[in-house]
Amino acid sequence: MTYQEVLTNAKTAIGPRCKVCPECNGVACRGVIPGPGGKGTGAGFVRNYQELRRIRLRMDTVYAAEPVSTKTTLFGHEFALPMFAAPIGAVNLHYSDKHTDLTYSAEVLKGCKAAGTVAFTGDGVKDEVYAGCIEAIKGMGGFGIPTIKPWNVQEVIAKAKAAEDAGAFAFSMDIDAAGLAVLAAQGKPVSPMPAETIRKIVESVKIPFILKGVMTVEGAQKALAAGAKAIVVSNHGGRVLDETPSTIEVLPSIVDAVGGKLDILIDGGFRTGLDVFKALALGADAVLIGRPFTYSVYGGGEEGVSLYVQKVRAELAEAMLMTGATTLARIDRSRVDIV
Amino acid sequence: MTYQEVLTNAKTAIGPRCKVCPECNGVACRGVIPGPGGKGTGAGFVRNYQELRRIRLRMDTVYAAEPVSTKTTLFGHEFALPMFAAPIGAVNLHYSDKHTDLTYSAEVLKGCKAAGTVAFTGDGVKDEVYAGCIEAIKGMGGFGIPTIKPWNVQEVIAKAKAAEDAGAFAFSMDIDAAGLAVLAAQGKPVSPMPAETIRKIVESVKIPFILKGVMTVEGAQKALAAGAKAIVVSNHGGRVLDETPSTIEVLPSIVDAVGGKLDILIDGGFRTGLDVFKALALGADAVLIGRPFTYSVYGGGEEGVSLYVQKVRAELAEAMLMTGATTLARIDRSRVDIV
Amino acid sequence: MTYQEVLTNAKTAIGPRCKVCPECNGVACRGVIPGPGGKGTGAGFVRNYQELRRIRLRMDTVYAAEPVSTKTTLFGHEFALPMFAAPIGAVNLHYSDKHTDLTYSAEVLKGCKAAGTVAFTGDGVKDEVYAGCIEAIKGMGGFGIPTIKPWNVQEVIAKAKAAEDAGAFAFSMDIDAAGLAVLAAQGKPVSPMPAETIRKIVESVKIPFILKGVMTVEGAQKALAAGAKAIVVSNHGGRVLDETPSTIEVLPSIVDAVGGKLDILIDGGFRTGLDVFKALALGADAVLIGRPFTYSVYGGGEEGVSLYVQKVRAELAEAMLMTGATTLARIDRSRVDIV
Amino acid sequence: MTYQEVLTNAKTAIGPRCKVCPECNGVACRGVIPGPGGKGTGAGFVRNYQELRRIRLRMDTVYAAEPVSTKTTLFGHEFALPMFAAPIGAVNLHYSDKHTDLTYSAEVLKGCKAAGTVAFTGDGVKDEVYAGCIEAIKGMGGFGIPTIKPWNVQEVIAKAKAAEDAGAFAFSMDIDAAGLAVLAAQGKPVSPMPAETIRKIVESVKIPFILKGVMTVEGAQKALAAGAKAIVVSNHGGRVLDETPSTIEVLPSIVDAVGGKLDILIDGGFRTGLDVFKALALGADAVLIGRPFTYSVYGGGEEGVSLYVQKVRAELAEAMLMTGATTLARIDRSRVDIV
Repeated sequence: MTYQEVLTNAKTAIGPRCKVCPECNGVACRGVIPGPGGKGTGAGFVRNYQELRRIRLRMDTVYAAEPVSTKTTLFGHEFALPMFAAPIGAVNLHYSDKHTDLTYSAEVLKGCKAAGTVAFTGDGVKDEVYAGCIEAIKGMGGFGIPTIKPWNVQEVIAKAKAAEDAGAFAFSMDIDAAGLAVLAAQGKPVSPMPAETIRKIVESVKIPFILKGVMTVEGAQKALAAGAKAIVVSNHGGRVLDETPSTIEVLPSIVDAVGGKLDILIDGGFRTGLDVFKALALGADAVLIGRPFTYSVYGGGEEGVSLYVQKVRAELAEAMLMTGATTLARIDRSRVDIV
Repeated sequence: MTYQEVLTNAKTAIGPRCKVCPECNGVACRGVIPGPGGKGTGAGFVRNYQELRRIRLRMDTVYAAEPVSTKTTLFGHEFALPMFAAPIGAVNLHYSDKHTDLTYSAEVLKGCKAAGTVAFTGDGVKDEVYAGCIEAIKGMGGFGIPTIKPWNVQEVIAKAKAAEDAGAFAFSMDIDAAGLAVLAAQGKPVSPMPAETIRKIVESVKIPFILKGVMTVEGAQKALAAGAKAIVVSNHGGRVLDETPSTIEVLPSIVDAVGGKLDILIDGGFRTGLDVFKALALGADAVLIGRPFTYSVYGGGEEGVSLYVQKVRAELAEAMLMTGATTLARIDRSRVDIV
Repeated sequence: MTYQEVLTNAKTAIGPRCKVCPECNGVACRGVIPGPGGKGTGAGFVRNYQELRRIRLRMDTVYAAEPVSTKTTLFGHEFALPMFAAPIGAVNLHYSDKHTDLTYSAEVLKGCKAAGTVAFTGDGVKDEVYAGCIEAIKGMGGFGIPTIKPWNVQEVIAKAKAAEDAGAFAFSMDIDAAGLAVLAAQGKPVSPMPAETIRKIVESVKIPFILKGVMTVEGAQKALAAGAKAIVVSNHGGRVLDETPSTIEVLPSIVDAVGGKLDILIDGGFRTGLDVFKALALGADAVLIGRPFTYSVYGGGEEGVSLYVQKVRAELAEAMLMTGATTLARIDRSRVDIV
Repeated sequence: MTYQEVLTNAKTAIGPRCKVCPECNGVACRGVIPGPGGKGTGAGFVRNYQELRRIRLRMDTVYAAEPVSTKTTLFGHEFALPMFAAPIGAVNLHYSDKHTDLTYSAEVLKGCKAAGTVAFTGDGVKDEVYAGCIEAIKGMGGFGIPTIKPWNVQEVIAKAKAAEDAGAFAFSMDIDAAGLAVLAAQGKPVSPMPAETIRKIVESVKIPFILKGVMTVEGAQKALAAGAKAIVVSNHGGRVLDETPSTIEVLPSIVDAVGGKLDILIDGGFRTGLDVFKALALGADAVLIGRPFTYSVYGGGEEGVSLYVQKVRAELAEAMLMTGATTLARIDRSRVDIV
């Protein structure tokens, strides 16, 4: 199977709401929820993608050639590249019932592992979604990062312990799901949480905690105060609040404020290895990618996922070769222009 | 009835000139007058909408959850949210004869009151328009804000007294109607007025006065000198002069000049609760919304109006929850980025 | 006849190359020469129009009403408004053979005079074009401004004397026609000229001289040194060199350099009275308009011309009323925002 | 044959992948490889073209006319204009098999020489491509500049000596081809090279060396250190790395750093003599043009090439006349605005 075939298959398998566009930029699916779109005007998704286009790679191939390495570590574990699969939930609602959250997660987890990286998994109103993901991660020796929604603190702690018990090497909470009225409507309210509450969650287990959904310096500082070992700069793909800034434009100020004190991951509109390069150049430690994994799974299952990860890795390696940044550490602000 | 059904109904009921576009942004109706468009190139309307898109909400849900309150007061009266219905006139001319100005005003007044807010009503060449609106406001215990055109001062004062007699808790004059040659052509000239003349109007009654149609610091200072208790930063939806700035971009300088000395309202291109949030973040006390009430009335009458107001309130509440600004007072410049 | 009828007539009468677009902005006719387009990519024409859109009128109607006057003077002569018809040549080549340069000029001269303003007339390879225009101006008591191409200096001086003999109250030379290779190909070369040569032309007659085609501070200073009494800031409608700046964006620096020392006229993309207002706000003394006179003449002859001039005058008057600049002298930089 | 006829012929002869668009701007062919497109999103090609549009010529024809000269020299040789044909390879793959690299090169070399300029020729995986180009250059008395890919240093040196033996007056290496994985896949790896390695190549022959593919100040300084006599600021038409800056926007900083120490050529999106003028105004010594030569060759062979060169020369001469920069030395930063 080629990745082009994966995309071709996806066009029918993924259902009518996602068009598997040549540029996955949030325009065709503005406001398409259920579906892959950004909320409301879709501006959160569209701007994520668009602002990445303003960052340009400074090409320079006058240097002594040496092998390029895209390898990185997170919490002491080594990965083939600094890119992980973002958590995606309710896939049968937003895409097609070819997959449930459980079959989806299984494919992503396996495909990522095969290609040398790791997937975040999701959470849902029904208990079996989280439980199933934990089971899948357990079956893979802990090679997955469960994500918990900001339910009441007891439930979050119980789910954190379940993650730890399953051997997961880290866990995450997407605090920006706090406004999802659709969850409360199903009897499972979510809500904002202060740093002190998050600290209780962090301290309830020994595995490191990643706070996902940070868009401001203040938010990042509170994550640090709460004891998070990493944050994900994320606007939830534009799906929880319309008209936010893009993630890439808030990244530098967050890096300036907390860089070096915790790991800084980012998602939102990243598609290629060049996009990963850009995030690293602006100070991120790694990138999460979301939507492309949906059409990789629907179009090619585990193999589609692996092909996509390999494609991103090859693009990143090429960008490194063409700019002379042959290790990830050399990808810094001097490697890009913002135009 | 859902608000989506209101919009669907409106597409046929509102007549051929308004397309009830997915984004009500002034593009499809550029220059369509009679009709809903901005004058000439339509740039005044289009820019109002477009410049709001440049303001982005700084999401942060790391905080101690508490109930969000969208309640506000104007002249000592409490409202469910800081958004009022703008005056709209000659609806049978601009939209369809399903409504006259009187039936239109009645629906807006009732629907707004039911949803916890208040409507401004309009004025016209024929005396019965203003008189009918006053009658309707009287019938609702004064729960409406009549708007008077800048006719000769004696007429304006007479109409102000009628407003006071009807129990209206405030009244308004849209001084930016001063150039409407179409009124003079019908034997009812309007004209600019200096602060001294406006002061005479203000002093002719005891109820507070709102000057609508201010677009400059100088204009705001003259309104203050005239004794206005509030202004509406407004370019009349782009319908009295083509190629003005947008209202949102002149707001900050006006807030700097007269903020705190009188209430600052604003209209022009506002559609959602997120837009209301933006105006408050830049220093406005409340927002007037116009065109969406036309399709709410044509598509759903009083109920359509209420549904729209509730939608805006819910959006505002969500924006407050997602940014951590849980009271209106906390919505300040630090909550948004201008991109 | 209404002006709308003039436009409707023009759509057929003007020939296939001009589309009489709703916005006459140079897009549909990019590079259409023969025809009304800008040269090459059409960028000179398009940018003229587009940059005017960035200037916005600061509306303020809180002032003591007084009659608005759009009257101005040029070289001691009074005109109803500060807008004149620009010279247009070879109309049968660029539009349709419904008109020759002579019949075209006659209609523009008469229509302008009837509406209180004056037209510039053109020049051509064939001697009868200039001679015919001079004859027409003579027949109108000198109420017209002949424009001479930068032929060899003897010919220009001879034509200047002819203008003076005909009673023309001023004359002009469009120095930016210096690169028209098409003229040399017909045996009538044109060329750049230094200030000293232009001074000889200026001194050859007693009537004031207007140098048309100035786009830089240096050019304006040389015009002043040459004894010109006025300049026209002009890129020849984008027809002599592609990819120039727009005229409106070079105007302020030219005003700063030579304002008050000679009259500063401007053309390029001006369509409405609002556009005239903008030029005056940025320091111009008057505006020349070109292309709209072509469709006014083709669609309505002399009457069409008068209707167009009256339309521009009414728009200018309205802009003055709506901004509180009730005399031309009050239209200054404080009346507009550049966005 | 007219150049318009060349373009018309090209539309069929060039094959299905190039559309011979009115504006050759990289939009229609985004990502079309094989074909003429920029890699990936095509952003490298598109931005090259687009950024040139922001540079505007400051028109001024008030000066003493004198003949315009577009003549320049490179390494002591005189050319009719400062524009050379860029190397293009694998034309049968990217366009149509009407031409091989050898027949293509022959037409470009001859057409350029006839019009007073010179062509760069290309290199390929198969030895006969480079050898054939060398043969053709030899047949023209050395009037051509061979370009070598960054193969292993021994092969590059051997090819440099072949160039010298053929009488070529200079030779080039496109170091930005270092990332072309397609070459390694065919058993001919390319790679980056440090300045020291390039110096060995430079010192292996007596003819001057041009390093092509420099996009940063650091790259330019390394080229200087390596002994290059000229560089070509180039992103390889956007074909070796997506999302680079445009060449014109990196030019000024490179000129500031190494201008005067070696000759600075540039390519990427240049189409007309006005574009050549812009590069010179920003400090380049000459311009390379690529894609327009493909449709000139396919549509008109040697004659098409000559017609295109003459067109560019005439446009440059006109731009010089219209700005008063009558020699190339007078084309400096003061002649343009960047908008």
